[in-house]
Amino acid sequence: MKKVGVLGGGQLGRMLIQAAIDLDVEIHILEKDKTAPCRHVATRFEIGDITDFDTVYAFGKTVDLLTIEIENVNVDALAKLEEEGLKVFPQPDVIRTIQDKRLQKQFYKQHHIPTADFVLINDKADLEAHQSFLPAFQKLGTEGYDGRGVQLLNDINDFHKAFEKPSLLEKAVDIEKELSVIVARNENGAIKTFPVVELVFNPKYNLVDYLLSPAQVSEEVAATADSIAREVITAFDMIGLLAVEMFLDKEGNILVNEVAPRPHNSGHHSIKANYTSQFEQHLRAILNLPLGETKIKTPAAMINILGAEGHKGVAEYDGVEEALAVDGAYIHLYGKHLTKPSRKMGHLTILDNDIEELKNKVAQLKGVVKAVTKSE
Amino acid sequence: MKKVGVLGGGQLGRMLIQAAIDLDVEIHILEKDKTAPCRHVATRFEIGDITDFDTVYAFGKTVDLLTIEIENVNVDALAKLEEEGLKVFPQPDVIRTIQDKRLQKQFYKQHHIPTADFVLINDKADLEAHQSFLPAFQKLGTEGYDGRGVQLLNDINDFHKAFEKPSLLEKAVDIEKELSVIVARNENGAIKTFPVVELVFNPKYNLVDYLLSPAQVSEEVAATADSIAREVITAFDMIGLLAVEMFLDKEGNILVNEVAPRPHNSGHHSIKANYTSQFEQHLRAILNLPLGETKIKTPAAMINILGAEGHKGVAEYDGVEEALAVDGAYIHLYGKHLTKPSRKMGHLTILDNDIEELKNKVAQLKGVVKAVTKSE
Repeated sequence: MKKVGVLGGGQLGRMLIQAAIDLDVEIHILEKDKTAPCRHVATRFEIGDITDFDTVYAFGKTVDLLTIEIENVNVDALAKLEEEGLKVFPQPDVIRTIQDKRLQKQFYKQHHIPTADFVLINDKADLEAHQSFLPAFQKLGTEGYDGRGVQLLNDINDFHKAFEKPSLLEKAVDIEKELSVIVARNENGAIKTFPVVELVFNPKYNLVDYLLSPAQVSEEVAATADSIAREVITAFDMIGLLAVEMFLDKEGNILVNEVAPRPHNSGHHSIKANYTSQFEQHLRAILNLPLGETKIKTPAAMINILGAEGHKGVAEYDGVEEALAVDGAYIHLYGKHLTKPSRKMGHLTILDNDIEELKNKVAQLKGVVKAVTKSE
Repeated sequence: MKKVGVLGGGQLGRMLIQAAIDLDVEIHILEKDKTAPCRHVATRFEIGDITDFDTVYAFGKTVDLLTIEIENVNVDALAKLEEEGLKVFPQPDVIRTIQDKRLQKQFYKQHHIPTADFVLINDKADLEAHQSFLPAFQKLGTEGYDGRGVQLLNDINDFHKAFEKPSLLEKAVDIEKELSVIVARNENGAIKTFPVVELVFNPKYNLVDYLLSPAQVSEEVAATADSIAREVITAFDMIGLLAVEMFLDKEGNILVNEVAPRPHNSGHHSIKANYTSQFEQHLRAILNLPLGETKIKTPAAMINILGAEGHKGVAEYDGVEEALAVDGAYIHLYGKHLTKPSRKMGHLTILDNDIEELKNKVAQLKGVVKAVTKSE
């Protein structure tokens, strides 16, 4: 039995473990938070800082293969482990590029992958030199995650709020839809993509509001999104699972927004709705097993379950019974110990062969399940 | 979070845990074998004998609700726990009836549930008095499991091999097909059935050779099987999941063979192929949550993965890569430490919208994946 080490013990690790059980693969987790979602379900749950060189290096020495469930890890330790012969997928070089949005954007440009125009910014002086580039999004090179580290700068009047760290300015895209394609590649070089999905964002939290699979786009758009995802994973020469988030603009162009080299929120529906789940596919890819069929079994929607406003503390859940009473609705709780407003605490998958009925169920179920704190 | 106790830590407990993770339900296992399939994945894995009164009683005092994954448990302890207010599902009375095939058959007769004719036998003298009832299967009241404790007695010449314990003689049915319907009922009295499946038995091991979902039977047969399953769970007044195994005879009659008050081998395909898996449905039933939609997403076949002939010892697996290379084939290994010939070590689920193609894939994959021991 293979011992697969995973840096990070959050919900992605937890769902990876559910898939690993079927393949009789041991999952060894390294995670700082002793109450993290993987705590009760991992074969081994080791407390440690995944951004610390020595901790990651020592952990890597105890497993047969190493992967990640979050990009914010110590890449130098991964590179040293790889150099010493350990299989590390995704490869450290890929993680290094993706960790920094500035490197990521330059990578797309260099490989002729369509992406929104951008300029690199080191400080406020740079910003002033690029006034004509506005309005644009300023994105921090690193430290951005789930909507943090990104803001819109309309003109010179917004400069007072500009980030003072290395960042980039990216032209705002006139977005028709946000799309995502998850693509996997194994050591043999086999590649499989999941059917493109459509993401509807909640403007308040800048988190996915709900996801629809398959995306309601033309065959041509779907085919283009699919081939871009294949191009990106090939350009990275990456082994593992890569989520490629894209914009479809009003003119029909598809531009890569950003990527995540791991299972991703935009693939959670695949557990219930596709032949192979993204988590099993990730395992197949990094273990160099044949990649699984990805086609859909049924159309699906996915809604994040968030921490309720005004609730901070030990999590309990409202609305579970109401949600499960809806035909085709499934709940996936992440087992996080603490909730806070807008924290991702789980997700709902809704299955229905009729897309309109699916949307009705989304409307009915949105906000129904939430994490709250209750007085004892 | 609810603490659900489970008596038994085998593959059924393991797959129940995979489902429980999504509902953030803690699974506490009581199991004698420290290397059992649940050992690394349960929230708590307690070593203890599930047939011992004191052990089961003490374990029951530590959980919020108690269920089983095997019927061979100490029912007296369960009855006492129930009397003292613990929710025990399936109820101890139901387990007591089902544990003994003699009580089970009498129960069907009493409730007018169609079943093959039978007579009760206490010893050889009884047997001789019922010579005219032969040929018939002699089945031990208790101790029968997976084909053990059952044998065909053709005539008086077979008496030398007859079991000497309380048993029953059951008229051999002229079987057209073996069918199974899994049915769930929650405390509110809601009932849902899974679509009827068809079981093809391997005559050598008397184990399911492969399972086909949905069963290739007329709508009328499917409807009758469905309504019999509902009658049985209603007659038992049972809460939980009940697998109802039936014979369809050559004349089109459906007769109940036996039942199992828990997730069952004939429902494993539901993990991949039905809207709700039997494991999630069991949890929904015992936690009194709304029962899930059971319809199929895709037709499916299920093949047991067995221990290979001549191999006894620490298990490894042959054929995994070959199986996963088949589109729509999924592997579920149970993580058993030791293999022996014909031991159930896992299962393969194969998905295909075309039934003929599905059968071709079954033929291609049968026996490909097996548990073996390898010299180091």
